[in-house]
Amino acid sequence: MPCRSSDGANHVTETVAAIVAAHRAGTVKPAQTVARSYQRIREHNDPAIFISLRDEADAIAEAERLTDPTLPLYSVPVAVKDNIDVKGLPTTAACPAYSYLPAQDATAVAKLRAAGAIIIGKTNLDQFATGLVGVRSPYGIPKNPVRADLVPGGSSSGSAVAVSAGLVPLALGTDTAGSGRVPAMLNNIVGLKPSLGLISNAGLVPACRTLDCISVFSLTVDDAVAALAAMAGPDGADPFSRDRPLAPLAAFPAKLTLGIPKAGQLIFFGDHAAEKAYGEACKRWQALGATLVEFDLEPFYETARLLYEGPWVAERYLVIRDLLASSPEAIHPVTREITIAGARPTAADTFAALYRLQALRRVADRTFAELDAIVLPTAPTVYSTAQVLANPIELNSRLGTYTNFVNLLDLCGLALPSAMRSDGAPFGITLLAPTGRDAKLASIGRVFHADTRLSIGSKALPQPSLAAVPAQAGSDEITIAVVG
Amino acid sequence: MPCRSSDGANHVTETVAAIVAAHRAGTVKPAQTVARSYQRIREHNDPAIFISLRDEADAIAEAERLTDPTLPLYSVPVAVKDNIDVKGLPTTAACPAYSYLPAQDATAVAKLRAAGAIIIGKTNLDQFATGLVGVRSPYGIPKNPVRADLVPGGSSSGSAVAVSAGLVPLALGTDTAGSGRVPAMLNNIVGLKPSLGLISNAGLVPACRTLDCISVFSLTVDDAVAALAAMAGPDGADPFSRDRPLAPLAAFPAKLTLGIPKAGQLIFFGDHAAEKAYGEACKRWQALGATLVEFDLEPFYETARLLYEGPWVAERYLVIRDLLASSPEAIHPVTREITIAGARPTAADTFAALYRLQALRRVADRTFAELDAIVLPTAPTVYSTAQVLANPIELNSRLGTYTNFVNLLDLCGLALPSAMRSDGAPFGITLLAPTGRDAKLASIGRVFHADTRLSIGSKALPQPSLAAVPAQAGSDEITIAVVG
Repeated sequence: MPCRSSDGANHVTETVAAIVAAHRAGTVKPAQTVARSYQRIREHNDPAIFISLRDEADAIAEAERLTDPTLPLYSVPVAVKDNIDVKGLPTTAACPAYSYLPAQDATAVAKLRAAGAIIIGKTNLDQFATGLVGVRSPYGIPKNPVRADLVPGGSSSGSAVAVSAGLVPLALGTDTAGSGRVPAMLNNIVGLKPSLGLISNAGLVPACRTLDCISVFSLTVDDAVAALAAMAGPDGADPFSRDRPLAPLAAFPAKLTLGIPKAGQLIFFGDHAAEKAYGEACKRWQALGATLVEFDLEPFYETARLLYEGPWVAERYLVIRDLLASSPEAIHPVTREITIAGARPTAADTFAALYRLQALRRVADRTFAELDAIVLPTAPTVYSTAQVLANPIELNSRLGTYTNFVNLLDLCGLALPSAMRSDGAPFGITLLAPTGRDAKLASIGRVFHADTRLSIGSKALPQPSLAAVPAQAGSDEITIAVVG
Repeated sequence: MPCRSSDGANHVTETVAAIVAAHRAGTVKPAQTVARSYQRIREHNDPAIFISLRDEADAIAEAERLTDPTLPLYSVPVAVKDNIDVKGLPTTAACPAYSYLPAQDATAVAKLRAAGAIIIGKTNLDQFATGLVGVRSPYGIPKNPVRADLVPGGSSSGSAVAVSAGLVPLALGTDTAGSGRVPAMLNNIVGLKPSLGLISNAGLVPACRTLDCISVFSLTVDDAVAALAAMAGPDGADPFSRDRPLAPLAAFPAKLTLGIPKAGQLIFFGDHAAEKAYGEACKRWQALGATLVEFDLEPFYETARLLYEGPWVAERYLVIRDLLASSPEAIHPVTREITIAGARPTAADTFAALYRLQALRRVADRTFAELDAIVLPTAPTVYSTAQVLANPIELNSRLGTYTNFVNLLDLCGLALPSAMRSDGAPFGITLLAPTGRDAKLASIGRVFHADTRLSIGSKALPQPSLAAVPAQAGSDEITIAVVG
């Protein structure tokens, strides 16, 4: 039975799609939705979720000024991870000593606003987006609303918890090595990690500039795609931005080939419930019509080791080199220990790692030549906050088992709720495919998620019915291009 | 008046096209052409051009075994720079202590052989392809056949001289920062530097693996394109290889916009003859119908500084790190001094340079959005061997003024003879465009070269008439692609 939230609003207004529909139909006023977010934040009363909140009256006034109901995110309240610039609020990256007041919105934020979104606050994170746990912040540890003893996941901890708890229907995270996917699983929500460069990184505090991307948390795949469509596009202000078209959502294809790791290659660190849930997810894909084909996961693991043992930590070092020199005590001790190692690798180490990575990318290309996507656990297991605090680096690293290699291999990813375990911990899977297949992952992922009939987030709300989408392009379709 | 070469062969058999035509017509036997190359090598008698020569009888026997006259390089003698593997001959990279006997041909060499080419020897180079001068080799300094006091140019010194002197009609070079273009100018021949990855680098001794490519020297543009067409294609053995189609040659376009640097940006180091020759080349382009548009060269210069001052020398260091440690005296002193500096930069330096490079690439993208290509001097001036030996690093660096940035910016290039100066020194221009425009550069470059009516190479041979090519695709052509 779905619980109604304490403000009495009907649950159908919980998703972006439902909120926009209600605003357009006039059944809920844009300003009411914004006020409701603030009300829920107060009631939820977890001071570790937001680092800063926008003035409520200011947000409501912005909602009241919206005049175009056709805007795709018409007065949708949005939370933004506090390593992404929002004009009027400080950007801290969860490090008070690093804090600055940005002169303008990040490009992604500006595009969300242009699409009708109302930014209501900045969310907590593992400091400098270094971590997958959500406990490495001087602003506290957001409580996991699904199971309170578990870590919220990170680094986008506050954004994932805010969506799961129903405080906002949409939040921005970032994802360098899993920060947009691991918290999605831990909070029973959708985490969309777009192709690198699809969303501009202008106005983002870098973690690893060559690997960073802004990601989306939402309750449904369709909501995430709506946000992605609003933000995608090339941007002269970000040299790593790319001009890539985003295809529309399509019907579940008649033929779908998904890769699963060869027998014995998956790692769950002894978590049999996670292992069982992964097997059930694979059976669900088969029942939906997918053909499962085994592939060799080892090159992907090798890529992950390259990230952990290789030179990329030097990118994190570059971001806070000055602060490490001037005020090392201002940095979280775990973050400091990890990042200072970035001073050590040489240019020769870097090029050697880039050569190896290039070879591994070609292996991945060959893997994906036969597959529409691969299906992996989002994370191999879950950990409690107490466990992570006792063993902060090793357990963090384990959570990245299936996420660390993704941006190095230039893949796009979609983390989906897959099961609620009997122990009350959520389990999730992630679809991965080569850059540019974002819409493909969404088109199949939305059907999988709907098929689970899982409630969304932590509030036991039922999923809405899937909206109809156009039938997928057939294999004999002819495209006519005019050569200019 | 063209001189006839001493073996009495008619000059029309000097180009690849003419040689293949003569073989097909039966007027010259394949084995005769191969024997003639060896004869000319003996007569030319410059022991610094080749590091190793293949056994003549063996080469002739291979030519006699060719049975398919439709092969595009049907019994064309080819010289190969001695940093590219040829089975049966040692690969030295001009460093005897580094020498090894390769187990197989480089992919590019295997493809040339499959197209009918007969490899006759391995040519001298600036050691480890580090240099643009051709004087940094324990195997001597190839004499410049155009003007004997000038450096031959490098690093592909032997290959360029062998083509210019008529010893072979085709030779492979390599090009990391200008090694396939600067020697082309100094020898009055064509130097085609393809898009990175178009020709596989499998079997190449790396200089900077992220920037290297195999290049082509020939007497005409059409010959270079024939060789490129034979070698181009993806290769699983080289992770940096790319699958890029090579378009056919097309007629000179009705509308052609070429970029030239803004007033005051060109550097000639006081060489007024070179400056004048560049101005005349620009006038020739205008007479051919091109519109010249000024662009800002400064970001290209900044990219070149990034190469010289940045971390990429660490790639060269990686190649000979073991040799530097075990036998430093086995390395040419100038090469050693340059390469050992590659141990110093850090991973942080590397990523910082990669970020800046990414921004500069975007600037270049914007420059080329308005232009079909840019036209630059191939090198700003020429130097004598005596001058370079007296000032080996600074003068070498000057020769790279217009070549150093090209591979960093992922451009393709075509170096063309442009003028013979009154002092007997050759002058050349280079066309540059974004990756993938190789055929476009060739289609316009061949017409420019023909229009100069310059003799080809150092033997005062007239250029052959340009072959007819299909009219260029119109702007309203419709391409129909079947989506699979």
